[in-house]
Amino acid sequence: MSIQTFGHEAFFMQLNSDIKSFGGRQRQYTHPSQTLSCEMTFSIYLPLQAEFGPVPVLYWLSGLTCTDQNFVTKAGAQVYAAEHGIAIVCPDTSPRGDSVPDDSDGGWDFGLGAGFYLNATQPPWSTNYQMYDYVIEELPTLIEQNFPIDSQRQAISGHSMGGHGALTIALKNTARFRSVSAFSPIVAPTQCPWGEKAFTHYLGGDRNDWLQYDACSLVAIATDQLPVLVDQGTGDDFLETQLKTELLVETAQAAKYPMQIRMQEGYDHSYFFIASFIGEHIAFHAEHLTD
Amino acid sequence: MSIQTFGHEAFFMQLNSDIKSFGGRQRQYTHPSQTLSCEMTFSIYLPLQAEFGPVPVLYWLSGLTCTDQNFVTKAGAQVYAAEHGIAIVCPDTSPRGDSVPDDSDGGWDFGLGAGFYLNATQPPWSTNYQMYDYVIEELPTLIEQNFPIDSQRQAISGHSMGGHGALTIALKNTARFRSVSAFSPIVAPTQCPWGEKAFTHYLGGDRNDWLQYDACSLVAIATDQLPVLVDQGTGDDFLETQLKTELLVETAQAAKYPMQIRMQEGYDHSYFFIASFIGEHIAFHAEHLTD
Repeated sequence: MSIQTFGHEAFFMQLNSDIKSFGGRQRQYTHPSQTLSCEMTFSIYLPLQAEFGPVPVLYWLSGLTCTDQNFVTKAGAQVYAAEHGIAIVCPDTSPRGDSVPDDSDGGWDFGLGAGFYLNATQPPWSTNYQMYDYVIEELPTLIEQNFPIDSQRQAISGHSMGGHGALTIALKNTARFRSVSAFSPIVAPTQCPWGEKAFTHYLGGDRNDWLQYDACSLVAIATDQLPVLVDQGTGDDFLETQLKTELLVETAQAAKYPMQIRMQEGYDHSYFFIASFIGEHIAFHAEHLTD
Repeated sequence: MSIQTFGHEAFFMQLNSDIKSFGGRQRQYTHPSQTLSCEMTFSIYLPLQAEFGPVPVLYWLSGLTCTDQNFVTKAGAQVYAAEHGIAIVCPDTSPRGDSVPDDSDGGWDFGLGAGFYLNATQPPWSTNYQMYDYVIEELPTLIEQNFPIDSQRQAISGHSMGGHGALTIALKNTARFRSVSAFSPIVAPTQCPWGEKAFTHYLGGDRNDWLQYDACSLVAIATDQLPVLVDQGTGDDFLETQLKTELLVETAQAAKYPMQIRMQEGYDHSYFFIASFIGEHIAFHAEHLTD
């Protein structure tokens, strides 16, 4: 039996690549997204275990400037996904295409590659920049309809802007996810330049509208708790100005929300940092996904 | 004590980057190469163990079109190098720079990024394309003078053109290397289009001059043997036309040269294949490097 036979892939999903990796398959697909009004590309790693029945799934959200490919090629996660029998789904970081508006100043911290995993309310962004709904609704539905995934066993993780995405999405959907983790997350986008720029454009000037996409704000009002693991390098150039991990530490303490927040001595913001600890993150999720 | 203090780095070596990875350091340097008459860039992974004394070293030779970075960012090897306490040195795949001649037809299988780890004898290539001497003489000297490396414990590995390089260099220097391994190597460049094109340009038309850089030819006349591990994917598009693993199998059998040559079902020519088995390769080398 081949893993390929599991796919009752919807006719509109195009398989771009399908590569054997640690006994499983690393695949990339493109599909038209109704939510984002454009074509979207995502990657999925299916471990060998998926040939024999549904497997748990980890969603991975990447950071600014990334596509679905950065994590796939650089994180070295497949060895651990294979070991624990977990699928990993990597969406892109924004809507894409010539018709999708972009930062007219050519910045890399807003627009294409910088969707911030929210639903934009302001024109011209609101037409396409609906990454929150895409990641939480359209993409999981597509995944569950087309792959041997156990939808009762989902976790989410991400890096930087994607760490912000993973934390906020999990905090707003505690019933959906068994666990959440993040590398170098933007923990308080309402209080840092990256977040303030993006939220002003996507959500408008009323800062009250921003709080629903701010991990610290969500932790402060959380009623349900889920397991949280955060790793942050102390050698990360963005720590002081953009990431501000201490705000999450303080907020979690004040809210009595237990989480593992680990400052990792000397690590930077790169995929070498992610690679160094992704095994521990996947083991952390596996513990909650397979109990 | 910091690993940085080990470097009595020659003043002419420029440190381009220095990133923490699995407790060690992933670094990239640029230096002027006398052998190649150009500036060269290489990467080195120094495991944490290198802070406490000299460590064994594995040289990794990459394939066509690669630089020092492909293996560093895509192979996921650092976790195993850290585990076994082995440094990994990754040279570039050819001389570089505006003054270095390149394939005038714009091909990617000859010229820049395609040095084939030999010493060119034909103009205009002979001025710069001396990758054999660079990899076997100049680079190891630089490494041993500047890093805590135990020069008595060296191994070599590579992929595709770099697999050809690793095999031929090890077969010609059995006293230097404790072990050699290769992924998807070009085992008989004198009998495939990639090799015939490159060797004609670099070495001229006399095929007798080519045999010193042909792994199968070297195996056939080998007097000393060293441990050899080769992995080849059966789903590799280059297997039939360029790589021809069966020629190495036949030659080794005829020469009574024991080697592990493993055909890996369904794997392709990519770094996903390398990542899937690099752990086993590093364990193989570690066995010989640490005994």
